Amino acid sequence: MHPVRIVEVGPRDGLQNEARILPPATRAQLVQMLAQAGLRHIEAGAFVSPRWVPQMRGSDEVLWLLLEQPGLHLSALVPNEQGMRSALACGCREVAVFAAASETFSQRNTNCSIDESLVRFEPVAALAREHGVSLRGYISCVVDCPYEGAIAPGRVADLCLKLQQLGCDEISLGDTTGAGTPRQIRQLVDACAAAVPLAMLAGHFHDTYGMAVANVLAALEAGITVFDASVSGLGGCPYSPGASGNLATEDLVYLLEGLGLPTGIDLDSLVDAGAWIDTVLERQTASRVARARLAARTVRV
Amino acid sequence: MHPVRIVEVGPRDGLQNEARILPPATRAQLVQMLAQAGLRHIEAGAFVSPRWVPQMRGSDEVLWLLLEQPGLHLSALVPNEQGMRSALACGCREVAVFAAASETFSQRNTNCSIDESLVRFEPVAALAREHGVSLRGYISCVVDCPYEGAIAPGRVADLCLKLQQLGCDEISLGDTTGAGTPRQIRQLVDACAAAVPLAMLAGHFHDTYGMAVANVLAALEAGITVFDASVSGLGGCPYSPGASGNLATEDLVYLLEGLGLPTGIDLDSLVDAGAWIDTVLERQTASRVARARLAARTVRV
Repeated sequence: MHPVRIVEVGPRDGLQNEARILPPATRAQLVQMLAQAGLRHIEAGAFVSPRWVPQMRGSDEVLWLLLEQPGLHLSALVPNEQGMRSALACGCREVAVFAAASETFSQRNTNCSIDESLVRFEPVAALAREHGVSLRGYISCVVDCPYEGAIAPGRVADLCLKLQQLGCDEISLGDTTGAGTPRQIRQLVDACAAAVPLAMLAGHFHDTYGMAVANVLAALEAGITVFDASVSGLGGCPYSPGASGNLATEDLVYLLEGLGLPTGIDLDSLVDAGAWIDTVLERQTASRVARARLAARTVRV
Repeated sequence: MHPVRIVEVGPRDGLQNEARILPPATRAQLVQMLAQAGLRHIEAGAFVSPRWVPQMRGSDEVLWLLLEQPGLHLSALVPNEQGMRSALACGCREVAVFAAASETFSQRNTNCSIDESLVRFEPVAALAREHGVSLRGYISCVVDCPYEGAIAPGRVADLCLKLQQLGCDEISLGDTTGAGTPRQIRQLVDACAAAVPLAMLAGHFHDTYGMAVANVLAALEAGITVFDASVSGLGGCPYSPGASGNLATEDLVYLLEGLGLPTGIDLDSLVDAGAWIDTVLERQTASRVARARLAARTVRV
């Protein structure tokens, strides 16, 4: 199998979906700890309206504090041209836009149709090209939509092509509800890889139904080599309150290392970073690996 | 892929590892609810010393209450000849013995060496043959031992052969610590299938590190068609207090149905059975599927 790359989304996708709002310095410290654990690609913030997403207020500070570290790729979500200009202003070299494969989800989540969202991304993409900034496209609801139910792989593949034409370097396929199972993931990846190069695709799986690790395995077998994860499973699942959301980075690292795929990450340091942010948030970890490791430490002591 | 069979081990392996002790009538009700959800193979009790395992006291009552249901296969764990005679006395038609692939684990868990345990099983196997009772062999620590660490697949394969020679019809490969990852499971199954027929083997995975569902996927790809699971993930992990143990049946059913493999189980009824026993035990479910389903119900209401 090919070398794999992990994109840590906890400081953005994770913290954005936690109820508690953390100051930029705390978020920067989390990013720092994740970098020290060996993560090299971290989505660190979002340039969105603090009125709608107060969790991401002061993302410029988070990025400013950390952008100069060599070998560390920090990215930020930008919803539109204004966000993109803010990202550029603070020196961000990697940005991401967020689309949905479901019309209803697009309307409810971003208040516009899928096509309208693509129009909104055009100036972002133009600025990215102009400034040599890399552009990632997220597609949510790639298997299932909380409003529409099942989403056909062909719809996702069409959107992959449009995002590629827009100028995306990478497209992250998000199983937002976590309802997907390995066979569906396989079919999805095959459909998308018929539309755009397989190497452009990343897997972004949610663990709401406990399928995320198995879906990573299926996606690996289908040729995907980039995976998103969130330390300690930060993020919850806004469509199933009480259920878990993002795949925990600890669990992904454990799987990949177990498959003989080196990640460059020190699992104990990663567990420490997760335990620290969980203490700050007064939440329990959603990572089984973290729970097992922390329990084992207690026993040893 | 071939049809799959689920062996529900919650009422035995699960409840045996819960701190709270339930009366036989409550355990029988759980078995009844599991049968009504569509489970056809249920390990319902153990004929072990109530001094050592008080959770299984009165297993004869559990079995008596339910043995007459057509199409329902109830089994019991028997550690020795005395346990076997008790199982036979109450009409049990399926029994299981419990061995370990690790010498240290065998010594600590059953106070004898692996070979001594096999000698202890001989009269059990003779009685099983004499009475036409089917015999299942559990092997624990098939990947990793809490005392010895990694276990070579060849040691497990050797024990498979000995259990087959003893007269076992089925051998359940237990990843007791849950440390196994898909590649190891694949290697393990391949090694064991070189010693005994693949159709004899079952997968018994623990979810301590969140790998159980992915390990089921790997085992399916290696040809395994029988899987053990425990409703709501009953059982915990005695080697990592606070960590999760048995794979939850709900999660297994969700995976298998998602792969297009029919299980004959009604997932909502299964979630109900799990929620009921969790209320009785005052525990939280370890099943992600159950958590997501229950959360979705709350939202709907």
